[in-house]
Amino acid sequence: MKTEFEFLETIKKKYSLSKIGDDCAVLPKDSKTDLVITTDLLVEDIDFRLSWTKPEFLGHKSLAVSLSDIAAMGGKPVWSMVSIGVPEKIWKTDFVEKFYDGYMKLAQKFDVELIGGDVSKTPDKIVIDSIVAGEVKKGKAILRSGAQVNDLIYVTGTLGGAAIGLNLLENGKKTKHKNLLLRQLTPNPQIEIAQIISANNLATAMIDLSDGLSSDLTHICKASKSGAKIFADEIPVESKISDFKIKVSALELALSGGEDFELLFTVNPKKKLRLEKVLKNHQFSLIGKMTANAEIIELMQDGKSTILQPEGFRHF
Amino acid sequence: MKTEFEFLETIKKKYSLSKIGDDCAVLPKDSKTDLVITTDLLVEDIDFRLSWTKPEFLGHKSLAVSLSDIAAMGGKPVWSMVSIGVPEKIWKTDFVEKFYDGYMKLAQKFDVELIGGDVSKTPDKIVIDSIVAGEVKKGKAILRSGAQVNDLIYVTGTLGGAAIGLNLLENGKKTKHKNLLLRQLTPNPQIEIAQIISANNLATAMIDLSDGLSSDLTHICKASKSGAKIFADEIPVESKISDFKIKVSALELALSGGEDFELLFTVNPKKKLRLEKVLKNHQFSLIGKMTANAEIIELMQDGKSTILQPEGFRHF
Repeated sequence: MKTEFEFLETIKKKYSLSKIGDDCAVLPKDSKTDLVITTDLLVEDIDFRLSWTKPEFLGHKSLAVSLSDIAAMGGKPVWSMVSIGVPEKIWKTDFVEKFYDGYMKLAQKFDVELIGGDVSKTPDKIVIDSIVAGEVKKGKAILRSGAQVNDLIYVTGTLGGAAIGLNLLENGKKTKHKNLLLRQLTPNPQIEIAQIISANNLATAMIDLSDGLSSDLTHICKASKSGAKIFADEIPVESKISDFKIKVSALELALSGGEDFELLFTVNPKKKLRLEKVLKNHQFSLIGKMTANAEIIELMQDGKSTILQPEGFRHF
Repeated sequence: MKTEFEFLETIKKKYSLSKIGDDCAVLPKDSKTDLVITTDLLVEDIDFRLSWTKPEFLGHKSLAVSLSDIAAMGGKPVWSMVSIGVPEKIWKTDFVEKFYDGYMKLAQKFDVELIGGDVSKTPDKIVIDSIVAGEVKKGKAILRSGAQVNDLIYVTGTLGGAAIGLNLLENGKKTKHKNLLLRQLTPNPQIEIAQIISANNLATAMIDLSDGLSSDLTHICKASKSGAKIFADEIPVESKISDFKIKVSALELALSGGEDFELLFTVNPKKKLRLEKVLKNHQFSLIGKMTANAEIIELMQDGKSTILQPEGFRHF
């Protein structure tokens, strides 16, 4: 069965669609500004379950996942649209209004104007499509394709928290670490740190960690026609994961868990000191460097090198 | 139970959302141009059935319904995005590729660039969100709110064809009138005639006939704080409807059937001759005029006046 990535490559080639393939499409706006725009579909029982989220959280997350794509381009979010389809039994409750409450609270935080959308009935499940547009200085959108050999590889925040949160929610487990559940339910798009990275021209490539580090780094490597070497000890694994008995290791969750919505970006080594200075109030980690080994990601652990396969989330 | 229109009014007021409520949102682009943008959700077994459509038709219609919204603003469509969610059993077939074939054929006809989208899995039903943006000269987007008392009311094409097509499809009836089925399955967005109307500054208000004439004229009346008087004999009822034995009259189908995706627009009487000249190669009908009777639509038939209620399609 074709993967969704293979399918999109087919469609891109068949119809010469040059703007598809990054976190956002980049469009000319005016003489000084480009528009970056993204859309994300969220489907009940695939992307979320009503048994473990609530409408305000779902509204927040619907907007957050798209804001994260805007952040990954170095964009400042400006406007949004949201389409929501719900079955009649949900429409009769205050679910949709509470969904908008959660959505608008996050929209107002980042000064994003909701300009449109659609409301529809569905036979059974809830479905949401979130559209967000942002602005960047002309020609300054940070693509996946700009990484150079020897560029340093950084991630923001900690990884694996959203995945362990999902694991706890799916298994109905209680935890004193509410923050881990909220990492999954109400992720924080890294707009602020992305704006600093963008304003200081620090990143040669950037992507948000939605599918998982191994998958998303693969996207950068493919787009940049290069490889990467990363160091297990440098990956900022969410420390609280070790409190839980689960089948996979904390490192595996950090590598392939997905939905952390942190940023993964590459930086010319000459800019290392500048980066450390301007991001001094933020959490970030140097995890490795880009190599000439096209599309190969080496994971260094205990002095040994293994080839990392993209194991993150995909629909198909 | 609240209607979807009532709900959107609540949200608009609660969060001061000034750009919601027309066929498209209008946004500043550059010093000479505004962007008009719309999104439409299509859900299996609500908006279409796999038993009576095919993927190419569904691709066409997904784009067409949004292009029709761009037409209604007097916009020239420029770019689009499409999100599609399908169950795994559909993904394994060539359905999604054929969907894009139908979508891209229409996109290419109107020179619309597909710039992005999303592909997702669903548990069961197909869902599509279609996003299209167009351009208009700054300040020239044709809103629903511009109709003045005594403005003439026009519609393009014929009405009721899509509704009888749906009736035939739903009841599995065969017909020699394939065109009626295609009115439902592959509607033609009225971009060309809208561009002429826009270029000649003819319309004071415009909307596309997606919900049905009675509903969509109500939208113009509400937005323009006025009423309307229309004449049954002047409504361009699709003539082939009379071939079929159905429960409602051809006029009723034309008034409330929906999905014809023709244009309904109002024109200052001084521009009547100009309009007749520039649209001489197109089908259009003068069906009535705007009145001071706020939000009241009078239907004149056989010398009698009745008050027309908005009976068109709505989800909730």
